[in-house]
Amino acid sequence: MFFFNSHLGQIWSGISLAMDLLWRMGYAFGISLLTAWVIAPWIIKYLKRRKWEQVFRDQKEVRDLAQLHSAKARTPTMGGIIIVIATMSGTIFLVHWNFQVIVTLCTYLAVMFMGFIDDLAKVRAQNTRGIPGRMKLLIQFGLTLVIGGILYFNPDLYERYCVLPIPFSGYSLSITPFIFFIIFLFCVLAGTSNAVNLTDGLDGLVTSCAMPVIFFLGIVSFITGNGTLATLCQCPYIAGNGELGILCASLLGALIVFLWHNGYPASIFMGDTGSLSLGILIGMVAFLTNHPFHLMIGGGIFVLEALSDIIQVFSYKFRHQRRIFKMAPLHHHFELLGVHETKITRRFGIISGLLSLLSIVGLWHFWG
Amino acid sequence: MFFFNSHLGQIWSGISLAMDLLWRMGYAFGISLLTAWVIAPWIIKYLKRRKWEQVFRDQKEVRDLAQLHSAKARTPTMGGIIIVIATMSGTIFLVHWNFQVIVTLCTYLAVMFMGFIDDLAKVRAQNTRGIPGRMKLLIQFGLTLVIGGILYFNPDLYERYCVLPIPFSGYSLSITPFIFFIIFLFCVLAGTSNAVNLTDGLDGLVTSCAMPVIFFLGIVSFITGNGTLATLCQCPYIAGNGELGILCASLLGALIVFLWHNGYPASIFMGDTGSLSLGILIGMVAFLTNHPFHLMIGGGIFVLEALSDIIQVFSYKFRHQRRIFKMAPLHHHFELLGVHETKITRRFGIISGLLSLLSIVGLWHFWG
Repeated sequence: MFFFNSHLGQIWSGISLAMDLLWRMGYAFGISLLTAWVIAPWIIKYLKRRKWEQVFRDQKEVRDLAQLHSAKARTPTMGGIIIVIATMSGTIFLVHWNFQVIVTLCTYLAVMFMGFIDDLAKVRAQNTRGIPGRMKLLIQFGLTLVIGGILYFNPDLYERYCVLPIPFSGYSLSITPFIFFIIFLFCVLAGTSNAVNLTDGLDGLVTSCAMPVIFFLGIVSFITGNGTLATLCQCPYIAGNGELGILCASLLGALIVFLWHNGYPASIFMGDTGSLSLGILIGMVAFLTNHPFHLMIGGGIFVLEALSDIIQVFSYKFRHQRRIFKMAPLHHHFELLGVHETKITRRFGIISGLLSLLSIVGLWHFWG
Repeated sequence: MFFFNSHLGQIWSGISLAMDLLWRMGYAFGISLLTAWVIAPWIIKYLKRRKWEQVFRDQKEVRDLAQLHSAKARTPTMGGIIIVIATMSGTIFLVHWNFQVIVTLCTYLAVMFMGFIDDLAKVRAQNTRGIPGRMKLLIQFGLTLVIGGILYFNPDLYERYCVLPIPFSGYSLSITPFIFFIIFLFCVLAGTSNAVNLTDGLDGLVTSCAMPVIFFLGIVSFITGNGTLATLCQCPYIAGNGELGILCASLLGALIVFLWHNGYPASIFMGDTGSLSLGILIGMVAFLTNHPFHLMIGGGIFVLEALSDIIQVFSYKFRHQRRIFKMAPLHHHFELLGVHETKITRRFGIISGLLSLLSIVGLWHFWG
């Protein structure tokens, strides 16, 4: 009975803080949506004129898939720029700058830059290699070290981020030696970033799967950043997390417009510029709001896509070149089974929505 | 400062009532979702075996459209049965029966029955006539009279439902002479029912446009049915409206599964069984929660579709057979302009989502 133990004034101030944040989230959403709406056609035209178009793997490499995707040739890539610009414009005007927001945005922009170089290398060389995978992982590891280091030298922050609630259990897991903490952080950041990148293989697939996840993360930020709500839900309270909600709201606005153009038949792809940065943003927000384990449920589609890829590689290596899926990641498997591309996208999106809902329910720590 | 004027106990009881309702809504959503998931494949198979398939207008009647839609032949119709069964199963176990729920469900089932007869007539005669339009309107008018009459003889209910808040204004409109009340009620019920029916022309179009509207109506029911929340938002409070939220949650669960099968390329259509009943349910809930004017924003897509049809007819009649749209309703216009079907559905769905969000914002009566 939290309500009877606290002062009325405290509850009221909690509620008015929540209302203030809600309004700012609404405005951020609106500004980002409008910005994206205005700039998207311009950027698409510009990318087309520069001939920065997606390069596809050929018949030799991917067999039937090359034919299935033949209609996608000459579609401009690097549309992630739209998402980044819109998200930034929604955020900078309404956010109260604090540690969480600055770290998240710096990581976001750094990874976006890496993705941009990657896309550019692919477009210039007209092949699908880009920056080597090891190099990307190394950069992501460097970022992890920097973020982990900053946290380590702020003991009160570090203390909070080591203790992670487990969904539907009421228990928390403590990740104590610093080395484990760094490894875990790397798994979260590199995991989300690369899983989202892997998922980006069909028109609108990443966008429709990411939108519910961002919505879920917005709610997590909203609750963990508000003392009253966090107490009500028995969530950890981390001051300033509400501002990450502004980021999520902006991103959601940008993604809605992006889906408008990116849906089948796509007029633009987000490229690595969009997918790597979107992924790491999801990972960062989940980590800074202390709910990466909930993300494993909510972002289940991304987890499945990454797992299917890993399983396929292991099966190929250790089971005498036998495959489990017709092709990895998962969405190509269904595509080769003859399911229409839009149907896969829609169904993955629906599953992502239901999983995000489930992880929102799991926020409530009365369980267990 | 509502919070300082009321007793702590009152706030607490308001919050715990809201939590109880939220849980029941969640369970209703889950039960409906699971029911639909289980029965959908069976019903689709059954309808296919009985050859109850959608009949399309031919080349003579609709020219190019017939060719565009040629791939849709042999798709079973009357899938609305899945929605109705799932919605009912989610509702009956969790709802606390009261006036609003009983009236809504009776109307829902009556209209579903009418739609079913209509579909059956079309399938049997293998043409697209079915029950004549005038007959349908007459039945809808009869229903309106019954509902209006019941309300008229319950003065305290009637008083409430005559006063309708206008979005974004802070004012309310009073519809006082009974004859105006009946005409207005008829416009709302027949309007929504037929507008949703008109919109049902592309794979998944009604489903994706209706889902945000149902979500919006669920929130309206939740707020207007809870004393604390209604006071906070300065909404009218109508005891028992929360139970309509259970209905909305069930319907949402059913629609998600229906979209799974109904999305392009559709394995099933909802037919008039689904669309007429879905429409009247939307109208009933909007009316019983006292927010039909908000529905005109939230259900803007349905309004536009109906308007485009009316404008086209008038233009054809009074402007020497000239047309404004290539074809009415609106979605066929875009289709004939060469926009891909899935793109129209997705974009209409996005617009519907944004409009529903706007009308949720408009619920807050501090405006004006």
